[in-house]
Amino acid sequence: MLVLIRSTASETEVCDVLARAEKLRGRAVLFGRVGGPRVVRVEGASADEEMLRSVLAHVAVEKVLARDIPYVLASREVHPVSTIVRVGSAEFGGPALVLAAGPCAVESRDQLRRAAEAAVASGASLLRGGAFKPRTSPYSFQGLGVEGLHLLRETADEFGLAVVTEVMSPEQVPEVAALADMLQIGSRSIQNFPLLDAVGRQAKPVLLKRGMMSTIDEFLGSADYILSRGNPHVVLCERGIRTFDRAVRNTFDVVAIPLLKQLTHLPVIADPSHATGQASLVRPAARAAAAAGADGLIIEVHPDPARALSDGPQALRPAELLALATELRAMLPAFGRSL
Amino acid sequence: MLVLIRSTASETEVCDVLARAEKLRGRAVLFGRVGGPRVVRVEGASADEEMLRSVLAHVAVEKVLARDIPYVLASREVHPVSTIVRVGSAEFGGPALVLAAGPCAVESRDQLRRAAEAAVASGASLLRGGAFKPRTSPYSFQGLGVEGLHLLRETADEFGLAVVTEVMSPEQVPEVAALADMLQIGSRSIQNFPLLDAVGRQAKPVLLKRGMMSTIDEFLGSADYILSRGNPHVVLCERGIRTFDRAVRNTFDVVAIPLLKQLTHLPVIADPSHATGQASLVRPAARAAAAAGADGLIIEVHPDPARALSDGPQALRPAELLALATELRAMLPAFGRSL
Amino acid sequence: MLVLIRSTASETEVCDVLARAEKLRGRAVLFGRVGGPRVVRVEGASADEEMLRSVLAHVAVEKVLARDIPYVLASREVHPVSTIVRVGSAEFGGPALVLAAGPCAVESRDQLRRAAEAAVASGASLLRGGAFKPRTSPYSFQGLGVEGLHLLRETADEFGLAVVTEVMSPEQVPEVAALADMLQIGSRSIQNFPLLDAVGRQAKPVLLKRGMMSTIDEFLGSADYILSRGNPHVVLCERGIRTFDRAVRNTFDVVAIPLLKQLTHLPVIADPSHATGQASLVRPAARAAAAAGADGLIIEVHPDPARALSDGPQALRPAELLALATELRAMLPAFGRSL
Amino acid sequence: MLVLIRSTASETEVCDVLARAEKLRGRAVLFGRVGGPRVVRVEGASADEEMLRSVLAHVAVEKVLARDIPYVLASREVHPVSTIVRVGSAEFGGPALVLAAGPCAVESRDQLRRAAEAAVASGASLLRGGAFKPRTSPYSFQGLGVEGLHLLRETADEFGLAVVTEVMSPEQVPEVAALADMLQIGSRSIQNFPLLDAVGRQAKPVLLKRGMMSTIDEFLGSADYILSRGNPHVVLCERGIRTFDRAVRNTFDVVAIPLLKQLTHLPVIADPSHATGQASLVRPAARAAAAAGADGLIIEVHPDPARALSDGPQALRPAELLALATELRAMLPAFGRSL
Repeated sequence: MLVLIRSTASETEVCDVLARAEKLRGRAVLFGRVGGPRVVRVEGASADEEMLRSVLAHVAVEKVLARDIPYVLASREVHPVSTIVRVGSAEFGGPALVLAAGPCAVESRDQLRRAAEAAVASGASLLRGGAFKPRTSPYSFQGLGVEGLHLLRETADEFGLAVVTEVMSPEQVPEVAALADMLQIGSRSIQNFPLLDAVGRQAKPVLLKRGMMSTIDEFLGSADYILSRGNPHVVLCERGIRTFDRAVRNTFDVVAIPLLKQLTHLPVIADPSHATGQASLVRPAARAAAAAGADGLIIEVHPDPARALSDGPQALRPAELLALATELRAMLPAFGRSL
Repeated sequence: MLVLIRSTASETEVCDVLARAEKLRGRAVLFGRVGGPRVVRVEGASADEEMLRSVLAHVAVEKVLARDIPYVLASREVHPVSTIVRVGSAEFGGPALVLAAGPCAVESRDQLRRAAEAAVASGASLLRGGAFKPRTSPYSFQGLGVEGLHLLRETADEFGLAVVTEVMSPEQVPEVAALADMLQIGSRSIQNFPLLDAVGRQAKPVLLKRGMMSTIDEFLGSADYILSRGNPHVVLCERGIRTFDRAVRNTFDVVAIPLLKQLTHLPVIADPSHATGQASLVRPAARAAAAAGADGLIIEVHPDPARALSDGPQALRPAELLALATELRAMLPAFGRSL
Repeated sequence: MLVLIRSTASETEVCDVLARAEKLRGRAVLFGRVGGPRVVRVEGASADEEMLRSVLAHVAVEKVLARDIPYVLASREVHPVSTIVRVGSAEFGGPALVLAAGPCAVESRDQLRRAAEAAVASGASLLRGGAFKPRTSPYSFQGLGVEGLHLLRETADEFGLAVVTEVMSPEQVPEVAALADMLQIGSRSIQNFPLLDAVGRQAKPVLLKRGMMSTIDEFLGSADYILSRGNPHVVLCERGIRTFDRAVRNTFDVVAIPLLKQLTHLPVIADPSHATGQASLVRPAARAAAAAGADGLIIEVHPDPARALSDGPQALRPAELLALATELRAMLPAFGRSL
Repeated sequence: MLVLIRSTASETEVCDVLARAEKLRGRAVLFGRVGGPRVVRVEGASADEEMLRSVLAHVAVEKVLARDIPYVLASREVHPVSTIVRVGSAEFGGPALVLAAGPCAVESRDQLRRAAEAAVASGASLLRGGAFKPRTSPYSFQGLGVEGLHLLRETADEFGLAVVTEVMSPEQVPEVAALADMLQIGSRSIQNFPLLDAVGRQAKPVLLKRGMMSTIDEFLGSADYILSRGNPHVVLCERGIRTFDRAVRNTFDVVAIPLLKQLTHLPVIADPSHATGQASLVRPAARAAAAAGADGLIIEVHPDPARALSDGPQALRPAELLALATELRAMLPAFGRSL
């Protein structure tokens, strides 16, 4: 059982809640710190009605989650109003669908400028691009590193875009946060808890990508790592899961989008590029995500996909991104949304 | 290597193709019968350019598939023009999205009439409903059987709908084909080859549902079992696959829809009810399918889901189906389609 | 809730149980027939303690399964004593590990005789071999059919072996049962319920292979289809499941063996050939199965794997099968077993 | 194409190899540093026979891997002789099976001493135990941290055991390496590349656990991250993968053990505790691993599993561990091994 403490509770009151819970069940542990969100975990107490009522009644308690789930702060049950996360001119979770576009990896100033041009032309408000690249093989292109970050910043500023880019380790957080507007936690880092801790302790918004093997509960548990450290600006991203079917790179779990929207107040976007791994499938996948209620899309665009240093087969050409944007503009009003 | 024989080829010509292939490779086998589609399988010959050219050049050969795939007749490479399958007033694969609706299982005349009413009100042209139900446990409700078939026929006639219903074994084919307009092969039967053979040897259109662990190649291989027996009226249906994620009943593989449309000329529809198993997720899943290019939807509707004898949690109420139809009518014109 | 009726119960007593359950819960359905196993399903009754006690107390009731599982007759909770299934000289579930060996498909008398020779030399008591082959593509070798059955019977008789072979449809059951000693239900047929019904209504033992996507509950539910029709001679076979990992053909779920032994009284064997699809991995997989407690092994052996018409890469050569048998004889005494 | 440079090659020779490859293909990149292993990646060159021969012939080239795999240094093709990794008195990859045992998490000195006692009694040479615990929920017990490390060190010293414990982030590496004998990379960190880099740049042996959705290629790619940084002491550990089947916590991929032994020269052990998540299944899974050729086992033992702070249901009692060790001692001689 997880118990959310009111932010206004005094230390005496918190101690009292702990004592009540311990008396009834034997073990209760407090997480969080004064001034931030605080949660009490009570062990093995899912079915004790009497205790539930006693703890619930306490003035220091905001909410009790009796189900055995790994998250509290991300829960819509706890926080029913949808959260809006602002990055530059974008409002994730607002009426407009947010579009982030750019290359898989930053390769050169020219490549990035041409991708940014395509992004702007298609109505994007964020420029995506990897400076630090997690790669399966140590002998693959690992990204331009800090140089890539600077290219991203300069190009985004030139085109009036915000920057979202991946951070791979706690040590990188300060330098990435200094140059980017939004920090991406990649799918391979979804349970890199020291990294979640680090981005939770700074102020820039976080784009949290689902791991290729994350259950919905694990995904939201990871969101709570960030939220519980004090950073409320978290956007979730469905990007395909790994299944038996290898006809496409991943299986795009489009239904996770409305399911997450039911379970959490956080904005939910989709990455149809990684979800499909194949340019010809990105457009239908992007339309499907929008129709399923996604708050945004993050899409790979490359001026010359055939020469991309990573993930070329899944990058759209600028004209294809524009065509997709046109389709989205035609369909979104049916759901009361726009691009 | 698979070689498709022209329908106009003489027996002498067919023998000649077999002889050429055997001479070059050692083994060639002829499948199919005179008057129907015929295919020659040449063993282990994917890379021999010379033979390819020699066999290709023969007047009896329509097409050669050098890649190692289990299907020929379903392939868009062989048959580039999209197939339209007509069932009652519905045209699967035409410009209009086809809607099939009805209960999971036929339970009573009253239940079926109210579901049919909802189907018609929402623009459906087919009534779905199970008379023979494949159930994991022998102690679960197994369907009303032949009585259910008659109820389906009578109700569909009353409301001007066509009937689609599942057939579970070769012996059932004649009696189901006598009363239904379209025979459904359920996901558990996707590799029940004697059953595919039986529905391939009769004339009623077939709705072939993907198995919960079918690869795309296996799915199309099963379609070829039906097509190769002489029945060209096959509609494919994506209905969710089984993955590690059990937050929903299945994982709806929405990208399989555009992928199948690339690989095959057959119509492709979606079953968002089984794909999600949860009524609140059926609507977004249905919208996603339509946005991804589905040619139709098959949806469970029940006048009183709480009392359904099977799969109640995933059935829409009539008002919910109507609301979905309204959403679809608003969004489909963006893709040049209608409901 | 599932209620097993005593075989000695009178019809009046059975009606009384149904009436009690209905009074308390609203719906109760009787499955099975007089003289055979009979089960009552009571809807939605997992938590009602009072009813449980009342129904349990009835003289006609043998056992009540309160958990929501799809099987009763296969359950070790219901039938704690391990079942032994006899086929020829083999005792599945006895102290000796049973070995079945032979080719994937029957190809010729010579091939089969050489495989049978290898089987006998390695201590096998059953000859396996497919006469009817379920194949993904309609253009693949489909087996020799009835001719293959006769070859199996004659060769087995010559070498003093019993025959186990696959049956694919209800209509084939009589002719396969006439010639084989044990009927195999292949993994693609695990939820072919009309076929399970058919093999349940005849007397020959059944080898039930797990489907590549079967959960343990579904596997045992399928076993109950056979058992509930009156045939108690069922042997289960783990043969690999389909997962994200395609480095090998399937993922051998070796832990399913001890798990099944806990849940059911039926014998459990393993098929390391299909589980791995690679001859060099069959031996370690077979040893692992034996160490995990398997009651038997079914292994593909071919006199000339390179020329096999199906599944050559996973077939052992006769000398490799003999080497495996030698390893098994060395390790089995550590578990109080033998080959 | 990956090219392994001889450790004796001069810089001029290395440059020459790069130039040759670039001339033929356009792009070649050098990884590694002088004195350590160095690899050249040549882009898109898998099929060019002429180039292969030209590059191969160069005196600076040790080996060329033409297949598109993400690893070189871990490959048995490159390094055919099995590697032995020594930790304390243990020799991973030698004739004796290595046993590591201990609690999931370090909880107290008393708990740890009783677990160590059980480990020693069962023939273990390493004490396992988590001081830093990766947990799905931020509100779960996160381990005792540095205090836990000191308890591990003191207890291990008292009982003559070596310590293996998890490290979760690059910053933790120095303090964990100072107190432990072997650093564990947990399954959630399998693609935490900055962490792999950090353990690759220090000298203590590394226990690399497979991720729950790692392919074999990805697993060995991660091993190469460590090896390429200069640390050759890597032991691989299969610990169960995530599949559709949730009857047990994970699906133990026992066949990965012999498959890895074919592909890599590194020692391979198994973790039957996490693979099954259920104490009653740990023994058969451990026996299966040993029979499949595992070089060691890492097993959770707890003096009082019912009161464990994490993963109690999968911990063996001391007597159960002893019983398992007795079984292993009886069976291992059949494979020419011992405990």
